[in-house]
Amino acid sequence: MYPFTTGSFAVRNGWYVAAFTHEIGEALLARTILDQPVVLYRKQDGRAVAVGGRCPHRHFPLGKSCRKGDGIVCGYHGIAFGPDGQCTDIPSQSFTPRSYHIPSYPLVEHGLWAWIWMGEADKADPVLLPDLEAIGLTPGMIARALFVEHVKGRAQLLNDNLLDLTHLAFLHGSSIGTLDNAATPEEVVKRPGFLSSRRHMRDAEAPPVVAHMGHHLARIDRVSGMDFHLPGFHAGIDESRYPQGHARAGEAFASSRVYHAVTPETPHSCTYFFAMATTDASAIAIMEDYLRPVIAEDKFATEEIEAMLAVVGENPEELLLKSDRNAVEGRRMLQAMMDAERVG
Amino acid sequence: MYPFTTGSFAVRNGWYVAAFTHEIGEALLARTILDQPVVLYRKQDGRAVAVGGRCPHRHFPLGKSCRKGDGIVCGYHGIAFGPDGQCTDIPSQSFTPRSYHIPSYPLVEHGLWAWIWMGEADKADPVLLPDLEAIGLTPGMIARALFVEHVKGRAQLLNDNLLDLTHLAFLHGSSIGTLDNAATPEEVVKRPGFLSSRRHMRDAEAPPVVAHMGHHLARIDRVSGMDFHLPGFHAGIDESRYPQGHARAGEAFASSRVYHAVTPETPHSCTYFFAMATTDASAIAIMEDYLRPVIAEDKFATEEIEAMLAVVGENPEELLLKSDRNAVEGRRMLQAMMDAERVG
Amino acid sequence: MYPFTTGSFAVRNGWYVAAFTHEIGEALLARTILDQPVVLYRKQDGRAVAVGGRCPHRHFPLGKSCRKGDGIVCGYHGIAFGPDGQCTDIPSQSFTPRSYHIPSYPLVEHGLWAWIWMGEADKADPVLLPDLEAIGLTPGMIARALFVEHVKGRAQLLNDNLLDLTHLAFLHGSSIGTLDNAATPEEVVKRPGFLSSRRHMRDAEAPPVVAHMGHHLARIDRVSGMDFHLPGFHAGIDESRYPQGHARAGEAFASSRVYHAVTPETPHSCTYFFAMATTDASAIAIMEDYLRPVIAEDKFATEEIEAMLAVVGENPEELLLKSDRNAVEGRRMLQAMMDAERVG
Repeated sequence: MYPFTTGSFAVRNGWYVAAFTHEIGEALLARTILDQPVVLYRKQDGRAVAVGGRCPHRHFPLGKSCRKGDGIVCGYHGIAFGPDGQCTDIPSQSFTPRSYHIPSYPLVEHGLWAWIWMGEADKADPVLLPDLEAIGLTPGMIARALFVEHVKGRAQLLNDNLLDLTHLAFLHGSSIGTLDNAATPEEVVKRPGFLSSRRHMRDAEAPPVVAHMGHHLARIDRVSGMDFHLPGFHAGIDESRYPQGHARAGEAFASSRVYHAVTPETPHSCTYFFAMATTDASAIAIMEDYLRPVIAEDKFATEEIEAMLAVVGENPEELLLKSDRNAVEGRRMLQAMMDAERVG
Repeated sequence: MYPFTTGSFAVRNGWYVAAFTHEIGEALLARTILDQPVVLYRKQDGRAVAVGGRCPHRHFPLGKSCRKGDGIVCGYHGIAFGPDGQCTDIPSQSFTPRSYHIPSYPLVEHGLWAWIWMGEADKADPVLLPDLEAIGLTPGMIARALFVEHVKGRAQLLNDNLLDLTHLAFLHGSSIGTLDNAATPEEVVKRPGFLSSRRHMRDAEAPPVVAHMGHHLARIDRVSGMDFHLPGFHAGIDESRYPQGHARAGEAFASSRVYHAVTPETPHSCTYFFAMATTDASAIAIMEDYLRPVIAEDKFATEEIEAMLAVVGENPEELLLKSDRNAVEGRRMLQAMMDAERVG
Repeated sequence: MYPFTTGSFAVRNGWYVAAFTHEIGEALLARTILDQPVVLYRKQDGRAVAVGGRCPHRHFPLGKSCRKGDGIVCGYHGIAFGPDGQCTDIPSQSFTPRSYHIPSYPLVEHGLWAWIWMGEADKADPVLLPDLEAIGLTPGMIARALFVEHVKGRAQLLNDNLLDLTHLAFLHGSSIGTLDNAATPEEVVKRPGFLSSRRHMRDAEAPPVVAHMGHHLARIDRVSGMDFHLPGFHAGIDESRYPQGHARAGEAFASSRVYHAVTPETPHSCTYFFAMATTDASAIAIMEDYLRPVIAEDKFATEEIEAMLAVVGENPEELLLKSDRNAVEGRRMLQAMMDAERVG
């Protein structure tokens, strides 16, 4: 499916954000991830777990069932499953075969996020998770989970969005972007499972957000960038410094990290988790309100494009620009991962 | 389609409930039954009839057309059809060919229900209808049609529900069921076109409904059962007696019959007709309110499972329990009937 | 697709109404026409243009983007296109290849309508547009665009409706039709790309609209007809005269032209443009209110039939009446045009 080959939906062997950690509690949280129903909850010892969301007896949603102890009791016929997916009770019979179970998915809480592995469990190595320090979650940074959005568009449309930040100049031209976001060449770094882009803008027009945050500067030095941790996590950086000629030239007056997690739900929808971190707690509160319509713009673009594909089909002719190098590279890496899974 | 073989949607040669008799009057009642549009109405002599709901000229819905005499006049171009389906008038021409007609379906009013036969008309034998006495509609019983629900789930999900009453212990655990409904073995009786299950619970915990009806008994003797009259009618029985040790031990203090008719609409929806009978008129009024949320629970489970199948596909792996014997038998009997129709 | 052969959706080489001219202004007007996204707008010199509605870079809807000068700037990454479809700016690069463009569609303003040609542009000959005089837009006639309706039904259902005016007797029996509309034989004239039907009703019952317009006549002479300018425009005529025996026998007391443009949107929807012309400005105002429910009846019939086809499938058995000669002829002509396009 667009923009991948026919039948390629999503990388399976990879860590995806299933939820912000704060979303997971005693109550059952139901999500569909990679077309599979999943239930997330926290055991009595505080550990978060993820199990399959379909009762294998009559397919009733376990996410709409009940907690009992550390397990789930299906709301339909009362079949119970433990946090490891093992069936623990069948009320209508005394014997519970060991072979009765639901899937249990590796789930790791790491940073603000609970990460799930939907593919082969033996490949679920936590070392593959993004390094917290590398994504800017260092001591002194104040991090906050801001938005969870259900998006009626395929995950790759949001990945494409985040892999090509020239869109800041237009889609977000009234808030966080200026024409420099489109006109400045990017520096790209590529490693297995990782793709990074940076734009260094010197003595550049300040985007509207700068004034909104109380800084009265017409021109600034800016760094804008995004690190894609495949298959679905983007860690962004936004740094503003006083420009050359200013008394405090070179000094950063605003610096923030933003985190976009994109988790495929169905072939035509995804869940989008947005978080940010900065050194200034009051700034986060202001930015939460300021960024809400910005994230809504990305959601709007994604859903409009999904609707467009429904009209024009899955193989629309596509114009390639020089600025697409990063997005094309990201697609290629994801396609290669999907191809390898199919062969393996 | 699940849980049947690919292409198996519904038994065609069988009596299905098209409507409660009280729903059929002078006005046209449109229903889709086995993927066919049908119109039901009552002739001037009081007899109920069922004809095809599509005008064969330009496919306008006859159910949204007009009555005229004992027939229907299409609201689009005025073509008229009699209650036997024969075209009786074409306003734009003087000659009305005998070959112009819409389907006319055998329809029999029997008990609270109007039964339709969508298959081969020459096989529509009223002797195949459930015997009223056998289903408990005996003199002295007060019967009442209670609910007509449009359910966004395939008919078999409701049949499965009714063929496995262990679900009373959980889905309806706050009203009509206790754990005994799951734990008590059932007695099954099978005949061609008929499948019956009974659970006898002695000195058993009284379900919440007992107190609701004003009986202050912690433990009772109970009989719970369901007779499946294939392909789509389930007659249930619920009897409560004073338990051993009570002064009136063995005497029934509450006894009711419930009737569930499940009629396939499309491959992914059905119409669900619920009725009950008892000896006590005041009990029915109380039960109508009490059972409304119970029936809503069954509808909820059915629609949730249909939605789950839309995500996981038509061939979900299915866990078989000992308590599934009756449901599996019911499915087998329906599958055999569908297979026979395909060959025939 | 019904009522055409499998794969036949719509004639492509033909003029379709894309909009009423008054709908097109500085703002972008987005429509889907023949399954293609289209954007309509008026240049600074007042000329209306039509271009493709999908940005070929990332498929964002240009209809939800911005005007700039005579062109459009995509709201996602700022790629700009001129009114001829040529890409004029890519903000992220200095060079704009000539080969980058979106479709530009021939668009002609003619009468009340802006006509678009979605097929091969070199065949878009304005001589193929309906002649304004022939459709009654002569000096002295006051013309008015009345309704634009989005209809959830395939275009041919509305064409069928307009090719068979016997439906006036029933669908519009309470307003503009009488039984004579069905009973009176029609006179048909056929030319390439043109199909005309007329009914002459003498000393006929006056339809309700006559009294509504203030004429107290039980019986009148009427002419009712429709000229189909293939593939999607129907020019109707409605003339009422004093009948034989009346002091002013033969004199017209009411005469109007109605215009129905039917433009395929998707295989299951269309846009319906209704306009009328008469000599009396005050009559148009009254008719606008009077005809609103009449047009709603046609929309209702179309959407109901589309829903019926979704249930019974694309090949419903169809009863042919004598009065279908004109509709069948119209279908044949459209099918022949589609067949020729497929071969060509």
